Amino acid sequence: MTRLSDIGEDALIAKIVQLVPRDPSPAAGPGDDCAVVIAAASGDDLVLLKTDALVEGVHFTAEADPRSVGWKAAARVLSDIAAMGGRPRHFLVTVALPATTAVAWVEGLYHGIGDCLREFGGFLAGGETTAVPENSAAVVSIAATGMVRRSELVARSGARPGDWVLVTGTLGGSIRGKHLSFTPRLRESTWLVRHFKPTAMMDLSDGLAKDLPRLAAASGCGFHIDRDALPATAGCGPDEALGDGEDYELLFTLPPPLLDPLMAEWRDAFPDVPLTVVGQITGIAENPDSAATTGGWEHFRRS
Amino acid sequence: MTRLSDIGEDALIAKIVQLVPRDPSPAAGPGDDCAVVIAAASGDDLVLLKTDALVEGVHFTAEADPRSVGWKAAARVLSDIAAMGGRPRHFLVTVALPATTAVAWVEGLYHGIGDCLREFGGFLAGGETTAVPENSAAVVSIAATGMVRRSELVARSGARPGDWVLVTGTLGGSIRGKHLSFTPRLRESTWLVRHFKPTAMMDLSDGLAKDLPRLAAASGCGFHIDRDALPATAGCGPDEALGDGEDYELLFTLPPPLLDPLMAEWRDAFPDVPLTVVGQITGIAENPDSAATTGGWEHFRRS
Repeated sequence: MTRLSDIGEDALIAKIVQLVPRDPSPAAGPGDDCAVVIAAASGDDLVLLKTDALVEGVHFTAEADPRSVGWKAAARVLSDIAAMGGRPRHFLVTVALPATTAVAWVEGLYHGIGDCLREFGGFLAGGETTAVPENSAAVVSIAATGMVRRSELVARSGARPGDWVLVTGTLGGSIRGKHLSFTPRLRESTWLVRHFKPTAMMDLSDGLAKDLPRLAAASGCGFHIDRDALPATAGCGPDEALGDGEDYELLFTLPPPLLDPLMAEWRDAFPDVPLTVVGQITGIAENPDSAATTGGWEHFRRS
Repeated sequence: MTRLSDIGEDALIAKIVQLVPRDPSPAAGPGDDCAVVIAAASGDDLVLLKTDALVEGVHFTAEADPRSVGWKAAARVLSDIAAMGGRPRHFLVTVALPATTAVAWVEGLYHGIGDCLREFGGFLAGGETTAVPENSAAVVSIAATGMVRRSELVARSGARPGDWVLVTGTLGGSIRGKHLSFTPRLRESTWLVRHFKPTAMMDLSDGLAKDLPRLAAASGCGFHIDRDALPATAGCGPDEALGDGEDYELLFTLPPPLLDPLMAEWRDAFPDVPLTVVGQITGIAENPDSAATTGGWEHFRRS
């Protein structure tokens, strides 16, 4: 088995940059101290910035297929760009790996990143490879830029009392496999912000029980969750649908008059993606679920 | 001692974002899935993208002052932005740490990042905090955007036969302390690109012996190094000046007619920063130093 220590950094980089889409029209060639890209073409565009990290032993196991790990690393970033109504642009990929790591593992990782960017857009603009001490966990960190029209930007803070709360897909049980192979909801979000612009949106990464309170708090609102309506993944109950992390579905709020037309058009646009009303936004003073929504995933906390 | 596992991610983030300059006029508030920033104001500007990582046990020791580690993490990125002639803008800071890490260590880290950004510019736009397994090395990864005028952009690829090769500061021995406290050469590069624009430039991170061949190769040229002229740090000889990494000085090339006027004006502009001619660019066929320039630092390689 060829290990990173056998080939060195320059040879590794030469291999992996072939596996991921690159900018067809960069402002300067690759290999400089920074990537050079052209700024937004129009004053109507805003730039999105996102960074996200995967850690071996936390977000994936040493036995996981590296191509799936790469897919997950890129798809998590795409999911956040989707949550703001944006489209992906430039990706910076950092891998921190023991020198004993198999070159084939790293190639698999970049194959997976490339699979995801080829399907959803985005280019490799740069990155960093570095060694970690032996027996340290591998870390994959991806930073990216995205672009969003001002008129299509959706933040977490725009929900209003009375808005319906909706989620795409099904919730819970992601650890059984979906967390490595999920579809970032970019197509759905792009469609939504153009046709039924949500008042607030985010992606579900830590579980509905943890993420909906964040959206409500950002909006200065309370919320109600209809436990019986939760679209639980097969084999999961309401507790898993509320508390399990890594769903990577869209959570968004919608003014009541838009609900019926959205539901009707959604079925035509995305026949394979469930869309479910799971609750309603309330005033800040009335939050019947504040005590009920424990659970969800928080890093570091071990209590 | 309060550890990360005692306070959790949300409380940690609330603490650390207070320690680093933030964008005074963001396009959207903090706390969303992505940071939202305004694109370049002018079509004359290009965007620089850079990401860089520090690993415990590789780039700093567990005993290092966390404030110095934070300074180094930010200053390395600033050094790369300087090397392109740019100015820093938005920073995304990722920390991957064992849950047993002291909260005070993380606060020290962000104090150091804040020190550096306050001195040289740049804002915290977002980031990520995640756990690594216990006994895994801490990883600090910083991605940043910069801005550069098209007319001031300097790449590695513009050196021409006959150009002089210059370096700022002194070379070698960085491991004795400078690697944690160096001054990124932003002020110097901003001045250079406006007054004596180099034909090629990069920052010295892996040692002159490794970095100058990269610059020459990117330019399709050879080079000659004058070993006797190397501005070795006190206590270092030519071997250390050539081979030691982490100098973080500017390496640049200059057309011969600009050399004398540059040297005269440099002394007035930066009286405390040495500037030294260390060699000359040659044609690709004549490269007397290609065999002499072994050394320098490459990650992963252990031979």
